[in-house]
Amino acid sequence: MKIYGDTKSGNCLKVKWMCDKLALAYRWVDIDIMKGQSRTNEFLKLNGAGQVPVVEFDDGRTLAQSNAIIRYLARDTDLIPTVAWDAAKMDEWMFWEQYSHEPYIAVCRFQMAYLGKSVGDLDADKVKRGYAALARMEHQLALTRFLVGERFSLADVALLAYTRVAPEGGFHLEGYNALRRWIAESEEALGL
Amino acid sequence: MKIYGDTKSGNCLKVKWMCDKLALAYRWVDIDIMKGQSRTNEFLKLNGAGQVPVVEFDDGRTLAQSNAIIRYLARDTDLIPTVAWDAAKMDEWMFWEQYSHEPYIAVCRFQMAYLGKSVGDLDADKVKRGYAALARMEHQLALTRFLVGERFSLADVALLAYTRVAPEGGFHLEGYNALRRWIAESEEALGL
Repeated sequence: MKIYGDTKSGNCLKVKWMCDKLALAYRWVDIDIMKGQSRTNEFLKLNGAGQVPVVEFDDGRTLAQSNAIIRYLARDTDLIPTVAWDAAKMDEWMFWEQYSHEPYIAVCRFQMAYLGKSVGDLDADKVKRGYAALARMEHQLALTRFLVGERFSLADVALLAYTRVAPEGGFHLEGYNALRRWIAESEEALGL
Repeated sequence: MKIYGDTKSGNCLKVKWMCDKLALAYRWVDIDIMKGQSRTNEFLKLNGAGQVPVVEFDDGRTLAQSNAIIRYLARDTDLIPTVAWDAAKMDEWMFWEQYSHEPYIAVCRFQMAYLGKSVGDLDADKVKRGYAALARMEHQLALTRFLVGERFSLADVALLAYTRVAPEGGFHLEGYNALRRWIAESEEALGL
């Protein structure tokens, strides 16, 4: 299997972490999105959406969308709860991550880390929504060890990717005690 | 089960369609997001993210995120492929829908249908990305009957919601022949 990705991208790292955790063999192919390498004709054949990560299996099949990829790679493992309700809550967190967390936390970080913006240049609404996402996680993680109860799941993998680097997007995690405890435990679960 | 939703919201309709299709009993509770009803303290207890739809089961458990909800309601039905790879492609489309389709197609439609904007007031980048999403669907639907091969799945339910009302957001579907054929077939599959 090949993983086409950018090591600075949390979405791409989710896939790498999953392969490392599950001891799946892969070759990492660096795609520099800042140089337009995810928009070439060759790349668009791998993923018509022009986004990293993409995985390509040895038989040529390709799969995109970080959360769909890790859900596939981790099928039949204990990273996906066998109880249907718990799996549903995992999915809830994963869809929420892409809609209400990544577009604010990851985008602010992208603007600072990739584009060189300063905190003051960030869109105030994105910052506000990013903090709202962190507050929602803090609320849950003060109640339970991981996002879906007491067991580490793909919900934690998906949310860890950009939460752990939120400070690079100007977000202060001081005061988010449960969140910081969870980051450390999730990193440990993934051997980071 | 109660569905808290807004009948003008495609995300909410996905859940209604799924219950109707699977003959699941429910009570619809109208939430008017324009009147702030998804931001009240009472509503935030149902979903801390302050978003519709939310379903509440008879034992009080709640679940949010339209695609997580329909994935849960349709578990163990033929709307989710049993072949792992096909389920992965279904998930790919569903995550893509929330990240690369809904934020453009649904948001443009929201601005026109809810806020009264005209086409000329829309953000040009959102319009461009919306058409890119439609083009990607057209490409797939010229190859296969439904988004994941020849069988109707949750990927079609998720994408139908806002694609069928894209014209209300100023998007012209003339020329998207495969897409229009698919809209008609998907509506028929759901009995709409």
